[in-house]
Amino acid sequence: MAASVKRVALVGGTHGGELTGVFLVKKFQQSSHLIKRHGIETISLIANDKAVEMATRYIDTDLNRAFNPRDLDNPQLTNHEQSLAKKIARRIQQEKIDLIIDLHSTTSNMGLTVILHDNHPYLLKLAAYLTQINSKVKILQHTLNQESSYLINSAKFGITIEVGAVANGVLDAKLFQETENLVYAILDYLEADNKGQPLSTPPSFTKYSVIGTVDYPRNELGVIRAMIHPQLQFQDYQPLHPGNPIFITFDGEEIFYQGNETVYPVFINEAAYYEKGTAMCLTVISEQLTVNS
Amino acid sequence: MAASVKRVALVGGTHGGELTGVFLVKKFQQSSHLIKRHGIETISLIANDKAVEMATRYIDTDLNRAFNPRDLDNPQLTNHEQSLAKKIARRIQQEKIDLIIDLHSTTSNMGLTVILHDNHPYLLKLAAYLTQINSKVKILQHTLNQESSYLINSAKFGITIEVGAVANGVLDAKLFQETENLVYAILDYLEADNKGQPLSTPPSFTKYSVIGTVDYPRNELGVIRAMIHPQLQFQDYQPLHPGNPIFITFDGEEIFYQGNETVYPVFINEAAYYEKGTAMCLTVISEQLTVNS
Repeated sequence: MAASVKRVALVGGTHGGELTGVFLVKKFQQSSHLIKRHGIETISLIANDKAVEMATRYIDTDLNRAFNPRDLDNPQLTNHEQSLAKKIARRIQQEKIDLIIDLHSTTSNMGLTVILHDNHPYLLKLAAYLTQINSKVKILQHTLNQESSYLINSAKFGITIEVGAVANGVLDAKLFQETENLVYAILDYLEADNKGQPLSTPPSFTKYSVIGTVDYPRNELGVIRAMIHPQLQFQDYQPLHPGNPIFITFDGEEIFYQGNETVYPVFINEAAYYEKGTAMCLTVISEQLTVNS
Repeated sequence: MAASVKRVALVGGTHGGELTGVFLVKKFQQSSHLIKRHGIETISLIANDKAVEMATRYIDTDLNRAFNPRDLDNPQLTNHEQSLAKKIARRIQQEKIDLIIDLHSTTSNMGLTVILHDNHPYLLKLAAYLTQINSKVKILQHTLNQESSYLINSAKFGITIEVGAVANGVLDAKLFQETENLVYAILDYLEADNKGQPLSTPPSFTKYSVIGTVDYPRNELGVIRAMIHPQLQFQDYQPLHPGNPIFITFDGEEIFYQGNETVYPVFINEAAYYEKGTAMCLTVISEQLTVNS
């Protein structure tokens, strides 16, 4: 039997400083007709109110790394985000949510990125549709297993939307409106699908699949000793060839990409990833066929 | 007698998330020969180590609003930044610093901005020199009185450098290098001046003078109800004419500039100013003559 999505959760503020999702969810909460679709129940929620209020990514730990099923079951884990994750996961379960759309923003130049976390044909077809209605939409495959600690893991299906480049604590009107339209496009698609009148999709689309991460060069104390090279800054989704400059030290020494194949970096210079040891994620490109689910 | 500067303090990390200044000062501390100039003593310091470590603007209150002389004398004020301000002001005094150069960054598109806080001919001439060696340098006059609460108020002369657009928590290599060169240019100028061999300056330069601020439209609870208009985003230092769009509400309604004269907005959409009630600062433009001090 084909998959279907009847209950959706729109989540903003999983990270407190990412205002696009926060203000979109506030808008949806005030004007719920905007996200009403025939046959679909949609709830919208600010995940980390306290972090939003404090204008910070998180209070104690990254909420979007707090949903590992074992951690959710561990009564010892009680810091702000650990407790919050348990509460949110419980609500997602009680509301019988089929699909979580988690609205993020990034300081890297990711434009309008839709992240898929598995290879389910249902999501691939939705992704195909989104690339068709807006050629700026990029589809990024970042596969997670069932043990993942991301918020979207709480429901059967999950999509992360990442828009950028935008600084934390800042609203960019253009990105706000584009993200809003992307949310409506997803809901329209789900509605049509539920009605048995699926919207047309292209036969294939370009998919970027994460193959790994690259950290900043660091000294023996773990302090970074180089920055993203100016030629790579804001060049998300552009080809990086072996031998291309990738970092530059504080003294101006260039460091070159040592890989054997051309890759397409994303999340280049994302502020929150300095502490995670990630200067960028590397992806490879493929043409994904759209298959009926 | 002409003014002269013999002792300089280079300050980074007055705001913890503004990494350009933080990493520049770290570089200068490791390689102090870079900031050695004949006849000039230069110290460099990270103002708010703890905020840098926490990757946040401040711990309790904005350090760069904690230097009001009465507050410095008030023993009741003991939160992290209030105590820190006292410590820094004492050190600046003990070291007999003539000039503080405070290195900031901003999410607004300020390029390479040198902010003057008074109209002293000595600083105006330095500013003239800086516009000459790099045409990207903008001179912003933001006059402060003796009761001001900015860090630069601790010494006789103060300059704030604001570079952007760059997100908090992010290093932009190009801006890092440009800021570094700006610091060297200032030190070179001071050295030559002290030697009695002043560097040549243009007869005049363009100066932007702050005349006021504009807040975001807000609802009765103080929550913003509009964003910077896409046509104004990143347009710092560009003319804003009466009737030009300035904000856009979350519902897409445009709001227009109601002033009577053309102004030149700066600090457009600076993340840290949402809480200060400032969507942008308005400036007027003038041709400033260079006068010998």
